[in-house]
Amino acid sequence: MTGSPENGRYKQVLVVRSDLKMGKGKIAVQCSHAAVSASEEARKSSLDWWRTWMHEGQSKVAVKVSGLSPILDLERRSRENGLPFYVVRDMGLTQVEPGTVTCIGIGPGPVVKVDLLTGDLPLL
Amino acid sequence: MTGSPENGRYKQVLVVRSDLKMGKGKIAVQCSHAAVSASEEARKSSLDWWRTWMHEGQSKVAVKVSGLSPILDLERRSRENGLPFYVVRDMGLTQVEPGTVTCIGIGPGPVVKVDLLTGDLPLL
Repeated sequence: MTGSPENGRYKQVLVVRSDLKMGKGKIAVQCSHAAVSASEEARKSSLDWWRTWMHEGQSKVAVKVSGLSPILDLERRSRENGLPFYVVRDMGLTQVEPGTVTCIGIGPGPVVKVDLLTGDLPLL
Repeated sequence: MTGSPENGRYKQVLVVRSDLKMGKGKIAVQCSHAAVSASEEARKSSLDWWRTWMHEGQSKVAVKVSGLSPILDLERRSRENGLPFYVVRDMGLTQVEPGTVTCIGIGPGPVVKVDLLTGDLPLL
């Protein structure tokens, strides 16, 4: 079951660029890539967080930003705060230019730590 | 980088119910859940497939069906064909009723095997 982040102590946030005007299928694939890769980062670097998040039901939220700069800022702040993350760069075969940064996955990590970075961002 | 399934020998397909009229954020979260969980199934049951898929860049495609029945059919056929899969049931806190099946993730698996089940489905 997928659930609300309020149910658990751990969450993952998928932050998507809305300025690229991607279709819903493209967004779904970019978020899925971020989710798998950030989850894999967590499994390697923060195994306890990953295990608890999986056990709790993998809470995830999708939010949006309007350009590249906020994504790069979130990348830097994730690194500084010790949160697993993954920045997705698309091959650009459809809809966007090759190498375009489309989204970042942050976490799984403790809700309080993740919300410090993403709590103010609007839902996708 | 995310890429086209034609680039690699392995792919994952995310099959979403279009009849539920979910918003793009909801769809992104459901697909991400399917992607992480089906990937985890593959890591446990088909490690060589999972490793190659990750190394190739995690090709993913999002497609759609118009009801529950095609999802359950794909679940049965994935099992019969030895493909890793995961059916997502939503807690129903937003947009859908509790326990609603929203999507299925199939693979990563060999493109030929996955396409046998999903090759005819329209892109999301």
